Amino acid sequence: MDLSYFTDKFSAGLADLRYGDQPTSLYEPIRYIMGLGGKRIRPLLTLLGAHLFTDDLGPIVKPALATEVFHNFTLLHDDLMDQAPLRRGQATVHEKWNPNVAILSGDVMLVRAYELLFDIQPELLAHVLRRFSQTAAEVCEGQQWDMNFETETEVSIAQYLDMIRLKTAVLLGFALELGALLGGSSREDADHLRQFGVGIGLAFQLRDDLLDVYGDAATFGKRVGGDIVSDKKTYLLLTAQAQANPTQRAVLARHIGQPVPDADAKVQAVRAVYDELDIRPQTEELINDYFLDALQHLERVAAPEMRKKPLHQLALQLLERES
Amino acid sequence: MDLSYFTDKFSAGLADLRYGDQPTSLYEPIRYIMGLGGKRIRPLLTLLGAHLFTDDLGPIVKPALATEVFHNFTLLHDDLMDQAPLRRGQATVHEKWNPNVAILSGDVMLVRAYELLFDIQPELLAHVLRRFSQTAAEVCEGQQWDMNFETETEVSIAQYLDMIRLKTAVLLGFALELGALLGGSSREDADHLRQFGVGIGLAFQLRDDLLDVYGDAATFGKRVGGDIVSDKKTYLLLTAQAQANPTQRAVLARHIGQPVPDADAKVQAVRAVYDELDIRPQTEELINDYFLDALQHLERVAAPEMRKKPLHQLALQLLERES
Repeated sequence: MDLSYFTDKFSAGLADLRYGDQPTSLYEPIRYIMGLGGKRIRPLLTLLGAHLFTDDLGPIVKPALATEVFHNFTLLHDDLMDQAPLRRGQATVHEKWNPNVAILSGDVMLVRAYELLFDIQPELLAHVLRRFSQTAAEVCEGQQWDMNFETETEVSIAQYLDMIRLKTAVLLGFALELGALLGGSSREDADHLRQFGVGIGLAFQLRDDLLDVYGDAATFGKRVGGDIVSDKKTYLLLTAQAQANPTQRAVLARHIGQPVPDADAKVQAVRAVYDELDIRPQTEELINDYFLDALQHLERVAAPEMRKKPLHQLALQLLERES
Repeated sequence: MDLSYFTDKFSAGLADLRYGDQPTSLYEPIRYIMGLGGKRIRPLLTLLGAHLFTDDLGPIVKPALATEVFHNFTLLHDDLMDQAPLRRGQATVHEKWNPNVAILSGDVMLVRAYELLFDIQPELLAHVLRRFSQTAAEVCEGQQWDMNFETETEVSIAQYLDMIRLKTAVLLGFALELGALLGGSSREDADHLRQFGVGIGLAFQLRDDLLDVYGDAATFGKRVGGDIVSDKKTYLLLTAQAQANPTQRAVLARHIGQPVPDADAKVQAVRAVYDELDIRPQTEELINDYFLDALQHLERVAAPEMRKKPLHQLALQLLERES
């Protein structure tokens, strides 16, 4: 069964979502950001999680879209907080409209995300909503840590990994957990799937960090080395700083957190240190560790092996992607 | 039974609310704004609504706090959007911390508001959450209209009344409806109570508009005439503009939307036009109409008259207040 079988299931539902009409200045930005596209990984994960336990995916389409609306809400507010001009190559909402519209449209999106969950089985509703809310708060915590790290001089690798767990991985985990619960799984299986998703999410984000430095400019779609230019404390940089000898530490100190006359030279100098320290294979090893750990959780889920195949396939796609 | 009987019921619960710990930059602003005080009308309305139908208010305290947390979330984001420096005489969150903290802390508050509702009876949960979400979206719509009106030249009185209904009144209505539902009322009675609350909310906001112009500076606690100085399109101004003769229209046009060399002179000139046009008694009449209409809905609720007394008392307090 191909991944497109599942994507097709929710694509129409996503296009048909109604967020509201008046005032248009409140609702048009929601349609805009939801229309910018993206990988739509989260609803796909929910349907794949449900399909481990049921063939009846129809009732799961609408709740599966909750995490996609929530994810886009976080993008909308994060872009404003980060003052990002572009999202998927288009103007961000605060640029196209204004910051106040971005705040308020985002607020309504969070409300709409909740609403997508209210039709699920009454006996699951409170539990699912508690888990969704906990996840939502964790995503906010992750974003706050991420912003805090920008101005903190000492960020440990453990802190960084916890930040990406909160900011990115827990929502992927919840998307899978949600699908499992709605598909009729046990709480235990739902939790294994959640942990599978968290592991894939961590690996996915580290892959993102790696692509930023070692990706191919043509396929990556973003400026290669952007994290280095903006002094972002990624796993690569934090590991390099922890392992650098005095000479390498001096090179990093000369470039990171300093005004940049020549961005390309900065990227080259920092990447040279990464290369000397084998940061790339070390990162790839950590990605692989998370991946293998995630797979162990998937293996423990009581569902037919055949049905786990699309989840394997998606996980591999996410980790081997070049963009 | 005194109103303080009900206030005492939820005060401890409000003080005991836990929003989260880490990062402190995310959660400290929530404790700060929730600690600034306020009239706490919304949880009071929920308990009064429930008490029409039950004596067992214990399980209703926690859900009753949802609208208070939600209300403070809207204040937090609204203050940022309005660039207000002060809230209840203290620095606003975006001033004390920064705009990004205000955005993200507000987002988490919305999540926490939802969480306070998840323990209610499973058979009511979906319905209550749908009504809460609808109300939450309407409050956002009201704020967006309010911001839109700042730059629109033509705002009708009907549009203004609809804006304050959305921005202020529907949440008071929902607080009562929530109490009724949790207390075991019929859907019909819950809806009458909702409409009672909406009417009181409209009257309450018009009273606010009136106090801004005709309040006593000592008891009002805010600068009298602030709405006139800031060109706010209130019911008073819109009615005056609609009823002004050419001379009065010229006076208004000379002062509204113009740079102000002398704020006091502006307030005096605009108030003089209001006085000539009897704007104050006209506003008082509309307040009274809303109040009487609200009371009719309260009368139709199938509950003992004795139990309706505190709601009468609170409504009167809100409408006769001087601050």
